[in-house]
Amino acid sequence: MNLNNISRPVLVLDEFRCRRNIERMVQKAKKAGCVFRPHFKTHQSQTVGRWFREKGVKGITVSSPSMAAYFARDSWDDITIAFPFHPAQLKDLQALEQKCKLRLFIHSVDHLGLLNSHLKLPFDVVIEIDAGYGRSGISPGEQTLISDLVSRANRLGKSNFHGFYIHDGRTYHTHGKDEILAAVSSDLETLKTLKQKYPEARISLGDTPSASVSENLDLLDEITPGNFVFYDWMQTEIGSCSPDDVGLFVLLPVAQTYPDRIILHGGAVHLSKDFLPAANGQKNYGQLIDYAENNSISPVRDTFLSALSQEHGTLTGPGLPEAENAVWMCPIHSCLTANLYDHYITTKGERIEKRVLS
Amino acid sequence: MNLNNISRPVLVLDEFRCRRNIERMVQKAKKAGCVFRPHFKTHQSQTVGRWFREKGVKGITVSSPSMAAYFARDSWDDITIAFPFHPAQLKDLQALEQKCKLRLFIHSVDHLGLLNSHLKLPFDVVIEIDAGYGRSGISPGEQTLISDLVSRANRLGKSNFHGFYIHDGRTYHTHGKDEILAAVSSDLETLKTLKQKYPEARISLGDTPSASVSENLDLLDEITPGNFVFYDWMQTEIGSCSPDDVGLFVLLPVAQTYPDRIILHGGAVHLSKDFLPAANGQKNYGQLIDYAENNSISPVRDTFLSALSQEHGTLTGPGLPEAENAVWMCPIHSCLTANLYDHYITTKGERIEKRVLS
Repeated sequence: MNLNNISRPVLVLDEFRCRRNIERMVQKAKKAGCVFRPHFKTHQSQTVGRWFREKGVKGITVSSPSMAAYFARDSWDDITIAFPFHPAQLKDLQALEQKCKLRLFIHSVDHLGLLNSHLKLPFDVVIEIDAGYGRSGISPGEQTLISDLVSRANRLGKSNFHGFYIHDGRTYHTHGKDEILAAVSSDLETLKTLKQKYPEARISLGDTPSASVSENLDLLDEITPGNFVFYDWMQTEIGSCSPDDVGLFVLLPVAQTYPDRIILHGGAVHLSKDFLPAANGQKNYGQLIDYAENNSISPVRDTFLSALSQEHGTLTGPGLPEAENAVWMCPIHSCLTANLYDHYITTKGERIEKRVLS
Repeated sequence: MNLNNISRPVLVLDEFRCRRNIERMVQKAKKAGCVFRPHFKTHQSQTVGRWFREKGVKGITVSSPSMAAYFARDSWDDITIAFPFHPAQLKDLQALEQKCKLRLFIHSVDHLGLLNSHLKLPFDVVIEIDAGYGRSGISPGEQTLISDLVSRANRLGKSNFHGFYIHDGRTYHTHGKDEILAAVSSDLETLKTLKQKYPEARISLGDTPSASVSENLDLLDEITPGNFVFYDWMQTEIGSCSPDDVGLFVLLPVAQTYPDRIILHGGAVHLSKDFLPAANGQKNYGQLIDYAENNSISPVRDTFLSALSQEHGTLTGPGLPEAENAVWMCPIHSCLTANLYDHYITTKGERIEKRVLS
């Protein structure tokens, strides 16, 4: 596909930058002496998954049994499903355990019993700790429940207690390295206390800002970031990366131009509705960039998609381009943007298939 | 598929309610003496499209050449592409005109010349009017441009001036019938003035709130609403419909329960990130409902998804259900929710295929 002459929105993947992001995280984990078990929910592509395998990655993290099945079909045989197990998943897991070793997030002793009686093969048990984000997981204060889960996991036939996991979503609301490091520091403290009580436990941290910014991951046994493979405009604002590290873009045709705005063929179905707050109460749904493949990527100051409907995007700001057929946008949240497409086109024009919800 | 035992998020379509919404809009257009040319961007399904055909609908509206191609493959042969034409679309349109009569949104005399020299068959020209929404279209004050477009469209060989179109996105920000009717009234005034100057012009109004609420559409030649086929929670808040008219839901498995919240398997990839502002600065990403197929649908007061990440949804409020395996959610914006899936499951458990972005 020729990116200089597009007729519709295209999801563009910069293979060089993605591979560089992978390589950096591989090295970072190696230096810290911890296992790198990347989350594959961001790219959802068997092809991109192989770039990790080439770098020695053996186990992966996903967010649903159907996503696990997709990657198991490409020979991944050691998969964490980083989502609270619930009994309706049993049938899917029975099919999955034939293809890969499972590591499951368990928060109930009843569920442990259920899994031990319905699965045929050994599986690992992870206890997700809610470090204050207030989403899923168990509060570190629930000592009886945690202790019950650990002892039963080891006592029952097929389950094996693996360790503790924190995905600290609070870091996605931080600004700058110091705020990220403060969250990391509190998470590490929580995990350290748990490890003192359960010395056999492996401890794992999940989010991209922590894994990107912290230089002090030695305490951890594992990191499982996902977004870092592409990064996005939100991550540059948080401070996880520089604009030059971003590896995913949408290339959008110019549909209609005005003195004060450009209407792009690019709406909520091409970008998602995630936004960053901007000056004057505006919302930034996508950042205009100057893209040069072998050079650095530079954002065009204060120029972004300030309104999105289903297929229309309204580009406003002081840096509106002149006489372009299409413009390069950096997505606000690459996980949600990538999820909207069934394929990527690389900057070289090659097509890469990916999973869609089915 | 058995909806009483789901293992993952399911997009559920209530065929009875959708067909009733279609029938009502067909009758409304008939009563007003105007053509009903529904927008198919909301459902994006050939099967649902046939429900319109059964009711006598002959022409349709879509938002891109690729969506037009999808419906042309199911024998729709009279299609409006309600999106600003831009030259990169030429090749797609050359393929399309072999399958269906095209009606295109043109905003430039250069584009008119280009289309006349590159298309082989007659096509209709619509001038989109920007009634104040500030998205695409031509301001009604641009009299010279409008007059040039009309006269050239009729003079050049293949193009034929059809009329004027307004999609008044302002109505999506209204609350209650009076505010919608105020917007409709101003749009009708704009269209009436244009029709006085160009008596041969057909005039068309596009949005769901106007078409749903106004009882005074007699002046119009055509309406093209799309969202009304499903409606959604936003439309109930605007006042376009009652909760009992909504025909699209997501059924989400319960993953983990807490005293103050329930974590559902249902995130931004299952609902979209569109939200409605709620009390205390909260955001409503999806409304909990009591669903009873043959009875009325009732929203559970103040109980909704107040946080969404990629696959997790956090349900909070005074009406948290007890001991359910799955809960019924009314999407905030059905167009964006439906766009995330490659199929629907009807309340009878039947699968209906739909288009995905490709």
